[in-house]
Amino acid sequence: MSSGKWQELAKAKREQLQQGIPKEWTISPRSESNVLQIPGECGVLSSQELEITSLSDVSVLLRNIATAKWSSLEVTRAFCKRAAIAHQVTNCLTDAFFDSALKKAAELDDYLQRNGKVVGPLHGLPISLKDQFQVKGYPTPMGYTSWLDKVAEEDAVVVQILRESGAVIYVRTNVPQTLMWTETYNNVYGRTVNPFNTSLTPGGSSGGEAALLAMHGSILGLGTDIGGSSRLPAHFCGVYGFKPSYHRLPWYGAVNSLDGQESISTVVGPMSTSMSGLQIITKAILDAKPWRKDPQALRKPWDHEGYALSEHVGGKRLCFGIMWDDGTLKPHPPVLRALRQVKGALEAAGHSVIDWTPYKHGEIYDVTRAIWYADGGEDYEACLSPTGEPLINSMKPGADPHEVVAHRKPREPLSAYKLWQLHKQKRRLRKEHLDRWESTSSRTGTGRPIDALLCPVAPYVAVPHGQTRSAVYTMIWNALDYPALAIPVTKVDPSVDTVQSRERFFSPDDETLHKLYDPEIFKGVPVGIQLVTQPQEEEALLAMGQIVDDAIRKPSETCGL
Amino acid sequence: MSSGKWQELAKAKREQLQQGIPKEWTISPRSESNVLQIPGECGVLSSQELEITSLSDVSVLLRNIATAKWSSLEVTRAFCKRAAIAHQVTNCLTDAFFDSALKKAAELDDYLQRNGKVVGPLHGLPISLKDQFQVKGYPTPMGYTSWLDKVAEEDAVVVQILRESGAVIYVRTNVPQTLMWTETYNNVYGRTVNPFNTSLTPGGSSGGEAALLAMHGSILGLGTDIGGSSRLPAHFCGVYGFKPSYHRLPWYGAVNSLDGQESISTVVGPMSTSMSGLQIITKAILDAKPWRKDPQALRKPWDHEGYALSEHVGGKRLCFGIMWDDGTLKPHPPVLRALRQVKGALEAAGHSVIDWTPYKHGEIYDVTRAIWYADGGEDYEACLSPTGEPLINSMKPGADPHEVVAHRKPREPLSAYKLWQLHKQKRRLRKEHLDRWESTSSRTGTGRPIDALLCPVAPYVAVPHGQTRSAVYTMIWNALDYPALAIPVTKVDPSVDTVQSRERFFSPDDETLHKLYDPEIFKGVPVGIQLVTQPQEEEALLAMGQIVDDAIRKPSETCGL
Repeated sequence: MSSGKWQELAKAKREQLQQGIPKEWTISPRSESNVLQIPGECGVLSSQELEITSLSDVSVLLRNIATAKWSSLEVTRAFCKRAAIAHQVTNCLTDAFFDSALKKAAELDDYLQRNGKVVGPLHGLPISLKDQFQVKGYPTPMGYTSWLDKVAEEDAVVVQILRESGAVIYVRTNVPQTLMWTETYNNVYGRTVNPFNTSLTPGGSSGGEAALLAMHGSILGLGTDIGGSSRLPAHFCGVYGFKPSYHRLPWYGAVNSLDGQESISTVVGPMSTSMSGLQIITKAILDAKPWRKDPQALRKPWDHEGYALSEHVGGKRLCFGIMWDDGTLKPHPPVLRALRQVKGALEAAGHSVIDWTPYKHGEIYDVTRAIWYADGGEDYEACLSPTGEPLINSMKPGADPHEVVAHRKPREPLSAYKLWQLHKQKRRLRKEHLDRWESTSSRTGTGRPIDALLCPVAPYVAVPHGQTRSAVYTMIWNALDYPALAIPVTKVDPSVDTVQSRERFFSPDDETLHKLYDPEIFKGVPVGIQLVTQPQEEEALLAMGQIVDDAIRKPSETCGL
Repeated sequence: MSSGKWQELAKAKREQLQQGIPKEWTISPRSESNVLQIPGECGVLSSQELEITSLSDVSVLLRNIATAKWSSLEVTRAFCKRAAIAHQVTNCLTDAFFDSALKKAAELDDYLQRNGKVVGPLHGLPISLKDQFQVKGYPTPMGYTSWLDKVAEEDAVVVQILRESGAVIYVRTNVPQTLMWTETYNNVYGRTVNPFNTSLTPGGSSGGEAALLAMHGSILGLGTDIGGSSRLPAHFCGVYGFKPSYHRLPWYGAVNSLDGQESISTVVGPMSTSMSGLQIITKAILDAKPWRKDPQALRKPWDHEGYALSEHVGGKRLCFGIMWDDGTLKPHPPVLRALRQVKGALEAAGHSVIDWTPYKHGEIYDVTRAIWYADGGEDYEACLSPTGEPLINSMKPGADPHEVVAHRKPREPLSAYKLWQLHKQKRRLRKEHLDRWESTSSRTGTGRPIDALLCPVAPYVAVPHGQTRSAVYTMIWNALDYPALAIPVTKVDPSVDTVQSRERFFSPDDETLHKLYDPEIFKGVPVGIQLVTQPQEEEALLAMGQIVDDAIRKPSETCGL
């Protein structure tokens, strides 16, 4: 293939990123498929830096900075180094703002020392960003070569708020071309791999963020989510991912794929190595009154009563629904085992769990995809054509460029009128789902409907590159606008997660998926579950997420390591 | 013109409505142009019924029912009678549910007597509904002959909530064909006229509701608003109209024009003869947790702190912005006088008022209309074609059916992709407007941005039938999703509202509008102003509306009479 304009642009950007990593933080090429131990072994990080970055709990790290146990400079340098290592083994970064981050950290340390108080709730904390959140003075290419010269005039609103809250912005992370994939590969930065097994995908579209967090190159970051993009990679990489409701967190100033599509809004999706990280960043952002900066942000402050579960008897004796499958694709054995484990843990903690029957997931799936792709590909074309960069149609390594995987087949563009008809259909489906949720009050024994719903994040764990399908288990909650969490539970254990024979299948796709399962391929890979509540119940979801997390986890256990 | 299928359907429906009015409530034809005094003079209502229906303050009426000073049956019968009279002189009704209303009122009286308490915050209160809110067992034709046989299987969610709160549903009110007009005329029910002067329009699209309220045939009702449809008729008829933010009040189960268009959402728009009516119904609906019935309703309970103006120093020494014109159409003299009167009253009450310069109203206007009409007329066609009913292209009495007024010219349908580009443009305009609002903090002297904005509801008062233009002064707040109130201020007085000569005009349209003004045409017609706040500040807006209302009104003055 001859090297055209877009190849040159991409090469230059990759070299620039490479040059941003100090020589003393580089390591020699490695051949392990599980690369999680490399930061601890490579000798780049000091023992203090390893201690800092081995933390999972964001609240502890913030406290250690606020009490000057560790300076922000020490913490930031530790995460910059570990992010640099993570990048060298997973290709997770798109930007390294190490110099400005270390300078900012020193300023924050100085402020704390002079004033005896923190600048805000995120004082001194390095926070990573998916390559959609604009940072003033830099382009946000989002994997498109044609966007490499579009320099941001302002920080995205959420980045402004993070900075005002004391956060240190130090890296941005990789995405798939067009974003509308659950893997992470593009023509600018190439492919991000799963640190648990580099032959597997970390998921997408916030795949760079998830790989970085799993490597403990970050403890807290922002992904985004329109169909599972924060939750799926979290599940694949053993970290926590959060999809709030539309416009709960400020989107303004983030770049996007299919921009202007507002029927199913992309949301800011916090990701972390701990539940505390998701809670802290959500509260910090809401406490900054984002509606004063983003015209679409809901005027809905952090709800203390919601977090105290005032509508859920304070979190005592909750009743969870559990959906074992969605009626279209039956989950692989480790996913079902994770659900059983969570059910058992919750019951042991005094809660109850009742079955939830899936409802019209196929129809919701069809409507959602019809809405997303209503432009018939015009948005992608507008982003690709300036440099002649090709559309990626398969994420299989070495795929024939003309091969188009099933869920990426081109669609006919729709008229605005046709789009309106889809909105009507979606509204009806949302009403039917709400009524079903409310109707569970006859079965819970609490007088309330189910407090939250447990279900798979995906029918599988991290799969080999190019093997993901559409995000059926996550996108439904985007369509219904139900907030959802991905919570890590366990890891694939071939001795118990054996192949289960099945005689009946929902569909040929279901049968194909069934045949994909091989315990040896997925050995040791993380498995999460999804927790879902009603629209705009973010605080209650985060509180119930903590209850689920406490129920399934021993206190000493750290995440992802 | 030969009488085809649609004419027969329309005639049958009108006759059915006529038959629903008891003979003893009918009056002989009248020739006055101002028909407001007819209920008091016609002899149909008893003196007690006149006393009941002369009230404007909803809180007083509710108290009188709750304390059994008046029974709900007495109140309901009084309003049924007065609504029947109002209909005979303004053609404001589409449905008269008198029998079921009286039955329900008697049940509520019985409940109160037996239990010594009310069923809910709207106990025994008759509430009128625009002909968009479905009532179980009845069609909601919304002015289309083809919808006359579409019988509702359920009440609209907001109707369910009103009933559960104790309201009595007794009438529905007229609308324009297609709804997208600021007048009220359709092929089923014909034209609604303004009770202050029947040669003038009551406005639209909630024109039936406004005419009924002005006649005191209702004290509280629900209109809707996508571009001014609750505020403009309120302004034209001397009553109060409220446009909340998108999805603050539950929409589900209401029928609509351009249904599925969600970029600029139609909202439930309460209308009343008093500010207390708007406050009481909004709180009653929110206290019923509408998000448990409407999947799109915001989970945002009534905000007591917001209503206490906790972010606006408790309502002491507020600073209002005032916009005298929008830079496209200069308001007629009485509209400017109403603004000056409000400014003076607020300053006399200790508040300050600073000028606000309009910003890109023309661009917002263009984007809004492009979004509304993105279907190129396909929705109208789908509603009209089943019966062959013609599209109304002009609301001038006796207009040539082929004449199409300027703001109703057909548009080309847009693709979904093109619609997305309009969303991007709108988002940027909303951001610029928000930043401008926030930036006023440098000029208010309070340390805060302006607390609310005063502006015209329209550049004119109620105009002769067929003379309205697009709703430039109201639709901008729909596009920006800023909640807004229309508050009646004064009436046109030819001795002071004289023609003002102008040498410069914003445009030929502006000049044409200028020439329309003739004090004698508009003599005695109501004039309102608009009050606007930031998105989802409904409670603060209602509280500040009360402050404005108190400042301009003597306590003894009643509304609309």
